[in-house]
Amino acid sequence: MGDSVEIVEVSSRDGIQNEPKVLSTAQKLELIDRAVGAGVRRMEATSFVNPKRVPQMHDSEAIAESVAKRSDLAAIGLVLNAKGYHRAVSAGMREVNFVVVATDTFNQRNQGASTADTITAIKNTVGTPAERPVRLGISIAAAFGCPFEGEVPLTRVMEVVDAVMGVAPEEIALADTIGVATPRDVSERVSALRRAYPSVPARLHLHNTRGTGIANAWAGLDAGVSALDSSFGGVGGCPFAPRATGNIATEDLVYMLDRAGIKTGIDLDKAIETAAWLEEQLGIRAPGQVMRAGGFPIAQAA
Amino acid sequence: MGDSVEIVEVSSRDGIQNEPKVLSTAQKLELIDRAVGAGVRRMEATSFVNPKRVPQMHDSEAIAESVAKRSDLAAIGLVLNAKGYHRAVSAGMREVNFVVVATDTFNQRNQGASTADTITAIKNTVGTPAERPVRLGISIAAAFGCPFEGEVPLTRVMEVVDAVMGVAPEEIALADTIGVATPRDVSERVSALRRAYPSVPARLHLHNTRGTGIANAWAGLDAGVSALDSSFGGVGGCPFAPRATGNIATEDLVYMLDRAGIKTGIDLDKAIETAAWLEEQLGIRAPGQVMRAGGFPIAQAA
Repeated sequence: MGDSVEIVEVSSRDGIQNEPKVLSTAQKLELIDRAVGAGVRRMEATSFVNPKRVPQMHDSEAIAESVAKRSDLAAIGLVLNAKGYHRAVSAGMREVNFVVVATDTFNQRNQGASTADTITAIKNTVGTPAERPVRLGISIAAAFGCPFEGEVPLTRVMEVVDAVMGVAPEEIALADTIGVATPRDVSERVSALRRAYPSVPARLHLHNTRGTGIANAWAGLDAGVSALDSSFGGVGGCPFAPRATGNIATEDLVYMLDRAGIKTGIDLDKAIETAAWLEEQLGIRAPGQVMRAGGFPIAQAA
Repeated sequence: MGDSVEIVEVSSRDGIQNEPKVLSTAQKLELIDRAVGAGVRRMEATSFVNPKRVPQMHDSEAIAESVAKRSDLAAIGLVLNAKGYHRAVSAGMREVNFVVVATDTFNQRNQGASTADTITAIKNTVGTPAERPVRLGISIAAAFGCPFEGEVPLTRVMEVVDAVMGVAPEEIALADTIGVATPRDVSERVSALRRAYPSVPARLHLHNTRGTGIANAWAGLDAGVSALDSSFGGVGGCPFAPRATGNIATEDLVYMLDRAGIKTGIDLDKAIETAAWLEEQLGIRAPGQVMRAGGFPIAQAA
């Protein structure tokens, strides 16, 4: 296991997109500010999707305009199709994360196309690394299980990975969109990905829906991922994935990594503060644990 | 990693001892019945402590009398001192779990003695395996950190382990009483224990206070524990450990192990049902995740 890992804060995209309370642009920008203040250096800032379907993403262009001015943050825009990709590029994003779901049923519900059609859209849209104006990551959603199709064989995941590798993405992410993965699955799938494409950095997107999120993060690190997605307070979910509760909590992840001597650059106390702030903005009780319990106890004077 | 592990259900002891609502003896016996119905074969049924300090344990003798009649359950009685040990033996328990805390401050608060005095009490009380009428396990509490003293060095934990090994316990448990452990700590400490005493089965008692509980269970299995404590719904806490929230949830643990092909004998659906029943009895919202999300999704007909 390495001595550091990059945390990609996703609260301003995945974290809030399923919440009944829609944050204002000002609130989102404050969230990004606070994240950077806590030490976050890479963030999924927004997504370029249809705001009629995902009203929380009503201001993607405004968010893009703001993050484009920052030199202290690598901001990612998530997209589901060619239209979203072109919007993200036009809005000035420097990095785009293109999602394709490993199963047809879910890809159809999430982005109105078959998996094969989305793969074709990726190939026809992004060009070669030299041609495109953005850093490109590709996320394989439902890479550990599908709410509609159930089991997703590793062979299917690797077929999708193989199909998109032609565009030479700068990063590949495996996403446990509905929080079904276990450490065994993560070890198996991340290892397969790393063996097949050792030069392409691997990222892992996890939900804690079944309590295994932090265990999966640990297994992912052990199997060689270089980046882990998380959100302050563990907020988050997918509007089109039934019962997909929160991402793994940034502060829970930082707690574990700090105690293991694995550097993230994120300050635990500030992450806890930000989680508490976000929960207040959303008017929810966030599922994060460390924001309630605090960090490792300090010895008390006798 | 082995292909099976023993789960020790602790809801009827640790799980309920910190809850404001005190369960009746009938409710506890129904909990034990339901646990056995779900496939549990070993259970920390009760503790022999002062009911003035832990009112939830008002009926230890009655619980002992009932479980003594069962041939389908290995029931454990937890004790903190000689008096508790003799009560457990008199009540007909066939297995006793004697707790000693790795730190003096916590041992003093938990059981009114220094760590050394509790070790002496163990030595003076339990005799040799041939002499004692019960199977004896010894739990080292706060083996990963102390709410009062902070860091607990591995050397300190191993000193306590070494000191109690003279009585030849049938099992040694490391307890993360306040839920501070991380997978790195678990790997380190369980490995040290297994290396030092390879013939003594190791058990791990975890709390999910900082979100790492399930990750720690996985790390423990990998390091060679043969038994894991958990409680339905993840209920539980220690009245004398500030902010020590729930044990790891039995059904969350079973979900992870089922998916990894590691046998526990516990039926996931029945474990979820029991967690839901227990939460109703306690009038709380239990922190378990799988009881909300359900198991791995079944493929839906197109």
